[in-house]
Amino acid sequence: MAQDDLKRIAAHRAVDLVESGMVLGLGTGSTAVHALDRLGELIRRGVLRDIVGIPTSKKTEAHARSVGIPLTDLNANPVVDLSIDGADEVDPHLNLVKGRGGSLLREKMIEGASRRFVVIVDETKMVNRLGGSGLAVPVEVIPFGWNFTMGKLRRLFDHVEGFDLKLRTEAGDEKAPSVTDNSNYVVDLFFENGIRGDLEEISDAILKIVGVVEHGMFLGLATSVIIARKDGGVTVMKKEADGKIMAG
Amino acid sequence: MAQDDLKRIAAHRAVDLVESGMVLGLGTGSTAVHALDRLGELIRRGVLRDIVGIPTSKKTEAHARSVGIPLTDLNANPVVDLSIDGADEVDPHLNLVKGRGGSLLREKMIEGASRRFVVIVDETKMVNRLGGSGLAVPVEVIPFGWNFTMGKLRRLFDHVEGFDLKLRTEAGDEKAPSVTDNSNYVVDLFFENGIRGDLEEISDAILKIVGVVEHGMFLGLATSVIIARKDGGVTVMKKEADGKIMAG
Repeated sequence: MAQDDLKRIAAHRAVDLVESGMVLGLGTGSTAVHALDRLGELIRRGVLRDIVGIPTSKKTEAHARSVGIPLTDLNANPVVDLSIDGADEVDPHLNLVKGRGGSLLREKMIEGASRRFVVIVDETKMVNRLGGSGLAVPVEVIPFGWNFTMGKLRRLFDHVEGFDLKLRTEAGDEKAPSVTDNSNYVVDLFFENGIRGDLEEISDAILKIVGVVEHGMFLGLATSVIIARKDGGVTVMKKEADGKIMAG
Repeated sequence: MAQDDLKRIAAHRAVDLVESGMVLGLGTGSTAVHALDRLGELIRRGVLRDIVGIPTSKKTEAHARSVGIPLTDLNANPVVDLSIDGADEVDPHLNLVKGRGGSLLREKMIEGASRRFVVIVDETKMVNRLGGSGLAVPVEVIPFGWNFTMGKLRRLFDHVEGFDLKLRTEAGDEKAPSVTDNSNYVVDLFFENGIRGDLEEISDAILKIVGVVEHGMFLGLATSVIIARKDGGVTVMKKEADGKIMAG
């Protein structure tokens, strides 16, 4: 099956969890778009009622509006029943890397405010260790002094073999920094061998750097992950009340 | 003596430490302005040569320019020889509260990149415990979801007697949030009895909140503090190589 079909399968399985009256966190990215489309369809058909969604990006806000999902925000609804979003990487403990789409801060804020956070991925996103797919781990930084902040990030991981980092730029223009919804820049971290060590400690060290706003490691936030397999089947990994991860 | 005279005395003592050829961090606020004026005067008179300054705010940039201090930035000069800046509060360990002026992020970045960071205050700024003067401890937050972020800050200090917090607004307009040089908002924290507990832990907990960019506690950054006393005399507190604080 094509990758996009797998994304749709995972997205629809997640939308099956939505009940009328829920406050939903609406994710960003190519997988989350399938969830938005499905939600809009079920709302239009009257299957789901009294749904309000909180978009995790301006892009998602526009798409959700276009498919007819009523919107709200965290000020009006500080507790979210269920968030549904994709991820760039998922490790065996349900830790994630997110933010290739550039909206990691809003995603982390909204998904961190959610009773349940369901991640939807195709199986290519599963990694043994975060960073292990060779894709970027993004860090959102304040534009002022970004080069200096990047130097601090470089020094933090200087001892790590295969580490590299790069200011994210607009496709086709190496001189134009990508700008997030919060008008910040993104520094992409690359770990050839994945991130080794205590992820919480590494997270704290990154956040302590002056000029860093947030990073794309989502530790302990996901409550379940719906994985669409190449064979068309679905695996669900779930965090139990005791913190153990169950797969089924 | 008037408070402004004391500020000038402390500022001039700090500028005595400046040598030709130095890269300087230029502070922000009513005390730092005296240092800028004095620096400009010494440069114009040819007493100081080859000075470049890195301003900690747009306001300081404009003032430094007006008095003839050549300017640079952290990208061109990632190591700063000496920073001179005021503070809202100084505790006996030379920890500071800064940022009533709203430029705490740039100050922390530049002063954190400095070999020496000299703080200039009149004696009313000395406190036994940070927060103890009843003045605000500022936290710079991303505008998106600021109210939600403020709720997280409230919960962090919910158990603290005499704690309160407030979005900083423009003087004379309670509806208009103050905006920092980085286009963010400021939440002011108030601790009626000062901040108790491990300041490093409290700092980490604040920085971990999604939506928080920086806070105004400057822990372990100042290398000396020049205190102008009401009697016109000056006390200097200095951090020795072993970390002990000496006064003289």
